[in-house]
Amino acid sequence: MGTTQLEAAPEPKYWHLRTVLSEALDSEFSVGEILPNERDLAARFGVARATLRQALEQLELEGRLQRRRGVGTTVAPPRVGVAVASTDEDRPGASADAWQVVDSALDAAPAAVAGMLGVRAGESVHVLRRRRVSHGQTVAAELLYVPAASVPGLTAIDAPSGPARGRAVLRELQRQGLDGQDRAVELGSVRAEDAKELDRLPGAPVLVVTTRYFSKGTTAAVAVATYRADTCRLTFGDTPSVEIHHTPESHAS
Amino acid sequence: MGTTQLEAAPEPKYWHLRTVLSEALDSEFSVGEILPNERDLAARFGVARATLRQALEQLELEGRLQRRRGVGTTVAPPRVGVAVASTDEDRPGASADAWQVVDSALDAAPAAVAGMLGVRAGESVHVLRRRRVSHGQTVAAELLYVPAASVPGLTAIDAPSGPARGRAVLRELQRQGLDGQDRAVELGSVRAEDAKELDRLPGAPVLVVTTRYFSKGTTAAVAVATYRADTCRLTFGDTPSVEIHHTPESHAS
Repeated sequence: MGTTQLEAAPEPKYWHLRTVLSEALDSEFSVGEILPNERDLAARFGVARATLRQALEQLELEGRLQRRRGVGTTVAPPRVGVAVASTDEDRPGASADAWQVVDSALDAAPAAVAGMLGVRAGESVHVLRRRRVSHGQTVAAELLYVPAASVPGLTAIDAPSGPARGRAVLRELQRQGLDGQDRAVELGSVRAEDAKELDRLPGAPVLVVTTRYFSKGTTAAVAVATYRADTCRLTFGDTPSVEIHHTPESHAS
Repeated sequence: MGTTQLEAAPEPKYWHLRTVLSEALDSEFSVGEILPNERDLAARFGVARATLRQALEQLELEGRLQRRRGVGTTVAPPRVGVAVASTDEDRPGASADAWQVVDSALDAAPAAVAGMLGVRAGESVHVLRRRRVSHGQTVAAELLYVPAASVPGLTAIDAPSGPARGRAVLRELQRQGLDGQDRAVELGSVRAEDAKELDRLPGAPVLVVTTRYFSKGTTAAVAVATYRADTCRLTFGDTPSVEIHHTPESHAS
């Protein structure tokens, strides 16, 4: 496959079907409803199963359909806006922080992260596993990497790992003071370790947000967060007074 | 399919294959190299074609592989960082604006956009089609919606449409002064109209950035931009002095 298909007409069959299906979703189905099986759908629209699947995949990418473990394909609710950057809540450990520490350990950072942090490859750093819950659902899983040098005042308590240790690392990071951050957003796929927590299959599309936190001119911490791409819109606002992404109306796209 | 597969083991076969393939890409292939065809690859790794395809799709989502019209599947170069929000360059029409006006017309905005702009459904607004080029490649296509009320000083020149008219709308919008913006980033699929410009097939995954521009307490304009998800990382920085997303080093992920 591949090449043959890639050279096809500018408006392929599956794209047309996607539009027809999208209209059917609007007029005949309600949120949460389970779609008929693929065989019945393909017969109804007079297309091959492969074409149908491509159209369904498109609608899944667009957040119109959801495939859920043990349920099948359902009509998705509108995506929920999740604030990624605004005022204070994006500083790890700040009071408005929307993240929960799940676990913490000392471990080597991946090469790319070690590079951003300016530590040697293989050098142990604090690795905090965090989760973000919104509207009762886990919307993101994160690994936050904090080199020992960023938290010099961390007291040597007994436990070298665990959530309590993670919270202590965050408090100390917060105490050091952060002067800013920058972010990159890109498309990725769910790692096997995060799949269960996010209720997705390994490899499902996600939005990967990499944040660098700066303190005193150096990169004090790096977070790599994986947001569910099917249910979330990431919102970025520099005008908090007019942000409305927490009101129900803005959740409809 | 669907349900059966969704209930499978936590580490499915395609996920394992993705990891093995990813290592093969690192050790045996270089950027731009064309992969062997699917039959040969499936035979080499001892898997079914369907499993192979799933693994290839994963690696495409992650930006490791690229499927290109008439070429096939190639090893992708590292994604390029594209600045979405920083200082002034995100104000439409500002001197550092990275967008080119391709066309302009008066047209009705989609219902969701009309709602954000506070105009009646079906009411004509200025619709500017813009493109963003980075490193010699079109990385994004955008529709910018500007209601007549946002550009009151726009002079009635002869042409009601076209790129020159679009630039006049931007100049007037800029003259009115913008006080801020907010953004949402979500996963989407390429519309048929944008597919050719972005050199992708209709329906390919993209990052959709919706920006609301505020002026005097109202939403003066709304932009819906479609970024290639395969080649771009979107960068957001509030600390321009330490941003390094335009240097080559940061392009590697």
